[in-house]
Order: sequence, then C-alpha cells, then structure tokens
Amino acid sequence: MIGLMQDWPLLIHRILDYARTQHPNRPVISRSVEGPLHRTTYAAIHERARRLAKRLDRDGIRVGDRVATLAWNTWRHLEAWYGITGVGAVYHTVNPRLSAHQIAYIVNHAGDRILLLDLTFVALVEQMAETLPTVERFVILTDAAHMPETSLRNAVAYETWIAEADADFAWARLDEKAAAGLCYTSGTTGNPKGVLYSHRSNVLHALVNNSPDYLGLKSSDVAMPVVPLFHANSWSLAFLAPMSGAALVLPGPHLDGASLHALLEETRVTLTAAVPTVWLGLLQHLDATGAKLHHLRRVLIGGSACPRAMIERFERDFGVTVMHAWGMTEMSPIGSFCAPKPEVAGLEGDARLDLMTKQGYPPFGVEFRLTDDAGRDLSWDGTTFGHLRVAGPAVASAYFGDDAPILDENGFFDTGDIATIDPHGYMTVTDRAKDVIKSGGEWISSIELENLAVGHPDVAEAAVIGIDHPKWDERPLLVVVPKAGRTPDKAGLLAFLRPRIAKWCLPDDIVIVEEIPHTATGKIQKTALREQFRDYRWPTG
Amino acid sequence: MIGLMQDWPLLIHRILDYARTQHPNRPVISRSVEGPLHRTTYAAIHERARRLAKRLDRDGIRVGDRVATLAWNTWRHLEAWYGITGVGAVYHTVNPRLSAHQIAYIVNHAGDRILLLDLTFVALVEQMAETLPTVERFVILTDAAHMPETSLRNAVAYETWIAEADADFAWARLDEKAAAGLCYTSGTTGNPKGVLYSHRSNVLHALVNNSPDYLGLKSSDVAMPVVPLFHANSWSLAFLAPMSGAALVLPGPHLDGASLHALLEETRVTLTAAVPTVWLGLLQHLDATGAKLHHLRRVLIGGSACPRAMIERFERDFGVTVMHAWGMTEMSPIGSFCAPKPEVAGLEGDARLDLMTKQGYPPFGVEFRLTDDAGRDLSWDGTTFGHLRVAGPAVASAYFGDDAPILDENGFFDTGDIATIDPHGYMTVTDRAKDVIKSGGEWISSIELENLAVGHPDVAEAAVIGIDHPKWDERPLLVVVPKAGRTPDKAGLLAFLRPRIAKWCLPDDIVIVEEIPHTATGKIQKTALREQFRDYRWPTG
Repeated sequence: MIGLMQDWPLLIHRILDYARTQHPNRPVISRSVEGPLHRTTYAAIHERARRLAKRLDRDGIRVGDRVATLAWNTWRHLEAWYGITGVGAVYHTVNPRLSAHQIAYIVNHAGDRILLLDLTFVALVEQMAETLPTVERFVILTDAAHMPETSLRNAVAYETWIAEADADFAWARLDEKAAAGLCYTSGTTGNPKGVLYSHRSNVLHALVNNSPDYLGLKSSDVAMPVVPLFHANSWSLAFLAPMSGAALVLPGPHLDGASLHALLEETRVTLTAAVPTVWLGLLQHLDATGAKLHHLRRVLIGGSACPRAMIERFERDFGVTVMHAWGMTEMSPIGSFCAPKPEVAGLEGDARLDLMTKQGYPPFGVEFRLTDDAGRDLSWDGTTFGHLRVAGPAVASAYFGDDAPILDENGFFDTGDIATIDPHGYMTVTDRAKDVIKSGGEWISSIELENLAVGHPDVAEAAVIGIDHPKWDERPLLVVVPKAGRTPDKAGLLAFLRPRIAKWCLPDDIVIVEEIPHTATGKIQKTALREQFRDYRWPTG
Repeated sequence: MIGLMQDWPLLIHRILDYARTQHPNRPVISRSVEGPLHRTTYAAIHERARRLAKRLDRDGIRVGDRVATLAWNTWRHLEAWYGITGVGAVYHTVNPRLSAHQIAYIVNHAGDRILLLDLTFVALVEQMAETLPTVERFVILTDAAHMPETSLRNAVAYETWIAEADADFAWARLDEKAAAGLCYTSGTTGNPKGVLYSHRSNVLHALVNNSPDYLGLKSSDVAMPVVPLFHANSWSLAFLAPMSGAALVLPGPHLDGASLHALLEETRVTLTAAVPTVWLGLLQHLDATGAKLHHLRRVLIGGSACPRAMIERFERDFGVTVMHAWGMTEMSPIGSFCAPKPEVAGLEGDARLDLMTKQGYPPFGVEFRLTDDAGRDLSWDGTTFGHLRVAGPAVASAYFGDDAPILDENGFFDTGDIATIDPHGYMTVTDRAKDVIKSGGEWISSIELENLAVGHPDVAEAAVIGIDHPKWDERPLLVVVPKAGRTPDKAGLLAFLRPRIAKWCLPDDIVIVEEIPHTATGKIQKTALREQFRDYRWPTG
C-alpha cells in the first residue's frame, strides 16, 4: 500500500525557486574574475538561470547532456549550475588544477557538449581545444566588453549569449533520480573517475547537513564557500545557502590570505569553508598584519585532516568555532562532522582538542561500517584499524561510464580509508588503505608515523612506506628530507620516535633523501616512492 | 540518464537505527500512565521495537496492514510507531478526544487489525468493542502487574506480549513511498477523513523542519512534545529527536500546568511544543505559584493562532523564545514557521509582536499559493484575502479510502483557510473558507471580528456568521454571549468596534444570546449557529 502524499520530486531548481519566492533579495556577492566586487540577488540569479536554460535548450542541449564548467566561484558559475540542471542537463565541474592531459581526458570521457570557462582559462583551453571533439561551443564567462580574441570554436561571451534568450522558461520535468552533476575524482593512480550526482542526492545531502549540529545555516547567515564549486559540490553550500535564505559570498579566483580576509570583513561573512591549506594562508596573513575577524563565527575545515594547532588558533585567537568535517567526492561529499555529542561536550583543553582533530560522526543519511579485509565488522573501540565503508542516498553506486561494481554485497562503498571509530562513534582516518603497513596481523598508520617524524626539529618532510619483510609480511620504512643545513641521523630520529609510539610501530629503517616525489596537487606520491624503493632491502642483523 | 547514487530509501526505522548507532544512550523519559517516571534510551527502544515488530509478524500482521494506537505520549507509544512501521504495517493514531461514535467509525474505516491502548481507555473501548469487528486483538499498554480484568478480545498486556518475541528481526524492506502512518482529521462537518503518510513524507518532513531557523534540534537538546503522538505526528518530534540525538521527554496523560512544569524542570527540557490552551494552563500555574522556567529555551506553538499576549509573556517573563507555527494534518503537519527573516529581524516592540502573531513562511519543501475562487494567483501584499493552497512532498494527495480528488490542476491542495501573505512572504490565516463573509466582492474575516468583540469588557464569547443580504450577497451578523452580570447592548458594541476596524467590515446587526454551540473539542460550531439563525432577517430601515 502506497502512502497518499503528493508526488513532489526533489529537484535542484526547486531550491532556487524557493529562494526566489521566500528570500528574493538576499545578496549574492562575488569577487569577479574581471576584478570588481559584483552584487546580485537570488531573484536575479533565478531570472538569469532561466535565460541560460532557455539558451541551452536553443543550442539543442537535452535532458542528460553534459555541460562543463571550468570556473572559479562566482555568481555566473552558480547560475550556470541551476540553468544547466534546469534544462535537465548535467553540470560537469572540471577542476582547473588537473593537468591539461587529465582535463582533456575527463571532458572527452564525459562527452561534454558545451564548455563554460572563465577568462583565466582561455589560453589553457585554446591549447587543448583540438583534442576536445565533443565540445560544440565554448562560452567565456564574461561580458562583451571583456571578451578576448580567441580561436575557440563558436566562442561567445556568456552575457551576450544568455541575452539572446528571455526568462520565459519552465524548468524541465524530471524524475528526482535524474543525473544532475558530474565530478571526477583525481585519484593518485589511474584515470580520474566520474561521480554522477542526482537531483535527489544533492537535495537530500543539503537537507541532512543543515541540522544545527552540522552546517546549520540560518537566513541571517552570510556563507562563503572558499572550497571551489568544482571541488565536490562546494560542500553543498551552493544548495544550502539559497535553501536557507543565507546570503552567499563567492571569492572568485583570489584565495590568498589577504584577499579572503578583505572579503570576510567587507561582506560580513559568518560561516566559511575550505581545506586547511587555505586557512594556513589566512592565519599567516592575520599574524603578519595583526588583523582581526569581526564577523566570522564558524569555519568548516575538511578535505584533509585539520591540524590541531589550527583549531586552537581559530578558537583561542579569533573566537571562531571550527567544524572539522570529512568526506569524499563519492559522498556528495560530506560524510561526517566532528560535532560535540552531549557525552563529550564537557571536555576541555587537550581532551577537547583530541576530540576535535577526529573526523567525527555521520549525520542521519550516512551509515558507517568498519571492517577487516574480509568484510567482517570490527569493534568501535577507538584503537582497532579497519576499512571504512559507507552507505547513504548521496553515496556513489558506480562510476560514470564504468561497469565495474563498487559496492559490497551489503550495498556499502569502500572509501579506501583506514580508520578507527571510538566508543562514542567518532571516526578517525588513520591511513589510506593502500598506504597502511600490514605487519604480522597489526596495521601501522603511515600518516601517524609521518606526523610524528615531522615533529623532529631537523625534519622538513617525511614519508613512510611498507617494505616486504620475511617474518612480518611488511615493515615500515621512514624516508626523511632534512631541513636546510640540518643533518639528522637514524639513531637520533629513532630515539625521538621511541617514546612517542608503540614499539611495534617503530620504523625498521630510516633513509635520508634530498626530496620526496609529489603529485600535481602537492600530496606525497607514494606510488612513485614505492617504485623508487623497489629494490630496497632491509639491513641485516 | 539516471544519477549513479545509492538506492537508500527514506524509511522511518532508519531514524531509529541511526539513534541506536550514534546516540544509543540518550534518554527517553516518560510520565507513565501507571504513575512513575520511566527512563529508557534509544538503544533500548530500538531493541523493544524489533521485538514488537517480530511479535506483530507472528500475529500475521503484513505490509500495509493497519495497527491502531489509542494512547498518550509514552515510550511504549513511541516504540509502537517504530515497531509497527518496522514490520511494514501502518500506525493508525486514534484521537481519544473524539466521540465514541467517531472512534468506532475511523477504526472500522481504517480496518485496524490490532488496537494498542492505554489503561486509561480500557473502559471506553470495552463499550464499543462489539462495533469493531476488524480488530482481532486488543493490547493494553502496560505490564502484567497492572493488567486489568477485561472483556476485550484476545486482550494481553503489552509487556507480556512483546516478551514472547526476541529482538532478532530484520526491518521490512520497503519502497519509501509505502504507507507508514494514518491520522484522521476531525472535521467540523461530515465523517473524519484519513491522511495516509508515507515513510518518505515523514522522513522528508523531519529533515526540512530541522533547519536552525525552524525546529532545529541539536543532540544537546531535550525535547518534550506535549502535542500528542495522536495529533498529526506530534509535529515530527518523535522523528526529529532520534534523528538529531536529542533526548525526548514524553508527558503521558497529565497535561495540566503543574504536571508540565514539574516535568519541564525535573528533566531539564530545552524545547517543547503544544497548542495555545496547554500553554495557557502552564502560564496560569506559573502565575499562581511564582515558579520559574530554568531550562526551557524554546516553545513551539501551533494548532491554532497563538495569542499575542502569550508570546509576550513567554519572552518577557520567562526568557523563552516562542516559535509560532501553522499546519494541518494533511501537511504532516507543519506548513510554516514565523521565523525572523533578515529583512524583519530588526523589528522591536509592537512591530515585532505584530510579525510574530503571523503564521509565518514555509520551509523549503512547502509551496504556498494564494488564489481567488477561480484559482487565479492573488497579490502578496499583506491585505488581499485569498484561498491558501499548498504543495510539497509531505502534503496529502488524497484521503484514505476516498476516490474524491483533492488537488487542483496544478497539484495544489486547498487548505480551506483564507489567508493573506505579506510582501516578505509571511502568511496570516484570516478565516476558514466556509466562515469568511463575502460582501460585495470584499471578504470579511469572521475571526478578526470575533477577536475584536471579545476585547469588549462585557463580552464573554463572540461568533460571527454571514447572513444573506439582498444588496451585498452576505453581511456579518455578530452573536455575543455577555459576561455574567453584564448587559452589553448593540449600540455600545458598535461604538466599541467602529474605531477598530474598516467601516465595511462592521457587523450589520448584533444579537445577544445566552450561549453559542460548541464542538466536542471546544471550537465554535458555526454550522449549528448558522442553522440556528436560518430564519434570521436583517432589520429593515
């Protein structure tokens, strides 16, 4: 028996309809790529998104077609999302930080028919345009006055292009499971893989994350996603802000500390979100200038583990509450928040910081499992390492254009992360599964060892890899880059590590090198490091 | 093209699964029908709900079957909801305040197979048991020690009954659109009509209402729904509290001011919810005793319009924030909250109270339309009266067992309320459609006139009905019950009203009576009043 409730599909453009109706005049303020600060409203964005949808329709874009964006966070990028999904097409956010080769690969793999790009990226795309045969038209996200000379096919200035249509457009009628967005993961190995979001998954993801223990936006908030729209849905803020009536501040191309600080102050941002490296830049700017944060109240930090000192500084020196979160592109992307449950709300000092450096617990709508290699559930005791597997309505079930199954027999997705979960349900990522060292049945975290090693005053950078071992299967090898002018030695480093870690986790050997290989995005490239140490043999005796 | 996201249906028992996993030890505290305060946890409720589901399964209850409850807010009633929906059946909450005739009608109409009832209602149900042929078993919500002698068919004490099953039960696998709950509206005319909630509608309704501008529960909250579980899903709190990890306080049968105050203080409730009459009782108790509210921070008031003085008193005298809300059984039930948008957040004093007495604006997931009789959209100018029509995923599409269509050609449901919507989107209910007086193209609010009339020092109660008029179609007739010992006259009453209302809204005549007919739930019975004045004729000249 079916309930007798209305058929009202969860569609992305309904969010913008809602903002237009209930919060039409709330501001959307952007640092434009052209330079000046640009101010608009949800009502105006709604009107322009409909023009865009109508213009796409006239270009023959149909339900399910992919339209790519290569752009910073601005109002044009925002309205592009709603216009593209409003005609029933799929916004494909391309990460400009990928290599030209990878960008070409994903545009071709996605079969993008139109590419919308910022002025910043015209030269880059011109170089690869011949390798992008599916793209019928390149739209430059600017106006006629700023339109450059370009060799790009059917190039047009966005403002000229959408002015060719009026706003008399009815959004596409879609099933809520229809595809809405596409974002490729930049894996450290192999080709990028496409995660295909649905209208339903994006709307549900926004709803579950807007509880007051998590993102919890009020209409009085001013939210600034520094995390890019091309980075896993900008952590839902482009949906949550119009859904809540919060004002939206979009920082454009300049993400340095000084630019962000100016914008935080001028537009009175109350909540912002980005990866730790961005906040390192802001904190350094604040240190150098002695500037303060007068309006900011909450900062969401994710993407990689947030350093303990960063949490401490934001809270102690600036009165800003840190929300540590974890997720991945395959999770739309938020998987957990480190919000204080009542059982731990009374913690203070170091105990509180210990808690806040954890990745946290999932909201309703995300399920966690911690398993061994065979998929059996492991204890949530805070010390047992296991594979973190996840399920939920906004978790990927497959990759785009890829038949390989990615869910286990219970419907869970293996995150590739090794984690512990404590008795209160707080999860800590301890390693990537491919990097964890399996030593005689125990798992050793490469990340934990690396973090300890860089605490040594002579160490600039450290990486740990597992090397085959005749007795223990694998044992950890620590590879160290010294600070300039310093000469750490093996015995001194071991003496430093010994009191700080369980004995069986101590590296069996330490190698001093001049540099460690990195990926394009600055992460340690462990595959290359393992290749480099392919012929390494343990010292005998 | 379908998005590649997991198939994870929105099912009610997933909420309890979540609470068991993430907030297992959060308390659920009930005033039991037997007397003592009872303490349990979400983990224990999860365990007992699975026993109940297994026991229902053994009794042959199948997906889609209806299981009725006639019960106060206690932990047993809560776990009954989850156990019933966990086996795939439908919880049918019966309102004990209905007449015996109406209770029999809805139990038969629903075809309930089992009826779970509190000790309070055993005598009532014994009297009607022979008229309830579909009910195979009556389960008394108590333990063996308190089990009364009863003639009810296959009667058993709930505790004895669920002890016959263990908790090794896998929840039913269901489509999220499957029926989950059934609640009949107690219309003032005709037979009650059943609203059939789905798993999806209940879960979505909880999610959209949990934004921080609306109900916004944190895991640190202690939520007490005084609004009954049998009254339109207890305004979602039985779903929202476990979904958020908030503690839950269930007040059982005693809803007088003294009992509620004792519970608010002893269990440190931070948020509570009920209709205005309940809060009138609490405020009178506080006045009489000089007692304070030490923990309560927010009170949700709905069900009927919240008096201005009540908002003022809660805020000024007790530091409690009032959230005025509006809804109806057909809306699961919440339709709007009077939360301050930034445009009006700066209002103070009378202007602020004027705002807060409005019914507010809808959250994302509820759409409002204001239309004339022909369904054409009317202006949101704060003065134009129109029919309020609503749409959303938790709004009824039809009544149970009733083929009559209830949605207009745009898929909207006519609430039967006459309302205005102001330029900021705030809705005010001005009348029921069947009570509004249509005078020469203008609509006159019977409620507004009644509220003004009872402001006269000699008036105990007032009712306004429309009477046919040769020139204006209808004109208002004011019917007044004087206070004991007072003798208001027509001229004095008109003089009192004249400066307070537009001239064309003044009643054409005033009749003094000894009493006005009421419904069983204390509302003015306008159908009976109209019948009483069927032969009334306007004074000539």
